[in-house]
Amino acid sequence: MKARFITLDGIDGAGKSTNLAVIQAWFEARKLPVVFTREPGGTPTGEALREILLNPETRVSLRTETLLMFAARQQHLEDVILPALQNGVNVVSDRFTDATFAYQGGGRNVPLRDIEVLENWVQGGLRPDLTFLLDVPLEVSMARIEKSREKDRFEQEQADFFTRVRRVYLDRAAANPQRYAVIDSNRDKEQVRQDIKNTLNRHFGF
Amino acid sequence: MKARFITLDGIDGAGKSTNLAVIQAWFEARKLPVVFTREPGGTPTGEALREILLNPETRVSLRTETLLMFAARQQHLEDVILPALQNGVNVVSDRFTDATFAYQGGGRNVPLRDIEVLENWVQGGLRPDLTFLLDVPLEVSMARIEKSREKDRFEQEQADFFTRVRRVYLDRAAANPQRYAVIDSNRDKEQVRQDIKNTLNRHFGF
Repeated sequence: MKARFITLDGIDGAGKSTNLAVIQAWFEARKLPVVFTREPGGTPTGEALREILLNPETRVSLRTETLLMFAARQQHLEDVILPALQNGVNVVSDRFTDATFAYQGGGRNVPLRDIEVLENWVQGGLRPDLTFLLDVPLEVSMARIEKSREKDRFEQEQADFFTRVRRVYLDRAAANPQRYAVIDSNRDKEQVRQDIKNTLNRHFGF
Repeated sequence: MKARFITLDGIDGAGKSTNLAVIQAWFEARKLPVVFTREPGGTPTGEALREILLNPETRVSLRTETLLMFAARQQHLEDVILPALQNGVNVVSDRFTDATFAYQGGGRNVPLRDIEVLENWVQGGLRPDLTFLLDVPLEVSMARIEKSREKDRFEQEQADFFTRVRRVYLDRAAANPQRYAVIDSNRDKEQVRQDIKNTLNRHFGF
């Protein structure tokens, strides 16, 4: 069976962590080889860059940030994602390039065309085989963020920011329904879990 | 007088440091406003990335390195170079994009076309007004490096590497003689100094 490259994306508070665990359990139950990774980060170099990016005190312009995101992604691809896929191991990444389109592009107005240039530079023709887009209304996302973790630089931004981020995610999914599974994550957890499992079963032909 | 963007480039051991001092003295004597800066580095973010890049123990792939070079350059442009030029202050940068073409492109085989894509992404249409290309035969460069400083990762590479680096520098200068002043740096220091001063005088119309 050809190894698949699966990504999980969505606005902050859309329930990525919870549903990553669902995906993990599915792979365990099926006994399929898989590595779980994340962006930004995923390699020592990526983690070092992630620290720069998420630290509210680092002066990094928006365009520099975009380049650093893709630098981390380049290393992540070379060291983790491509070797796994080439060895028949499935890869699940917590965030990938959709997040750059959504956050740097939609949220902060880097032209989407400029992001596409870097996407092609770094990835060539490689795109995820399946992307779970976890989606919740903005109010839900904001409420979940409020009561959970410490806010980093991205999360300090305003509601209209997240509205734009969500819009780009949904636009991208609408433009390529073959690749994206949009999961309404504003439902009972068990329903969401079932959706994800069904999608994986369909995708792998079980 | 419109502020000029001047860069100084060439293979390691071509005498950049010595001749940077010549340029500095020229600006002082003319009492022209100028900032001196360098790449990689030039900003706190750039210096942090420079440490990653020059540290022989960091695992950074060639393509990641190229992206990090341009990330540092993006910040350098936004924080140092463009504000100075916009305020009528001349800028002299110790290395700039020519070094990426020469080292990552010529020396290590990143396709020059890929570097051009990033050059346009980061710089738009901005190019240096004048680039001093300090040139020496390979043997001279190697001998100078030998007896001077600690070798960093780039300098550990072999003679054929530097041959390719030098070739790209010279090709670029030959393709755009308006912008490049190729300085034969394998001569008496005083002759080299006079060359540089004459070039600056001509360029500024003195």
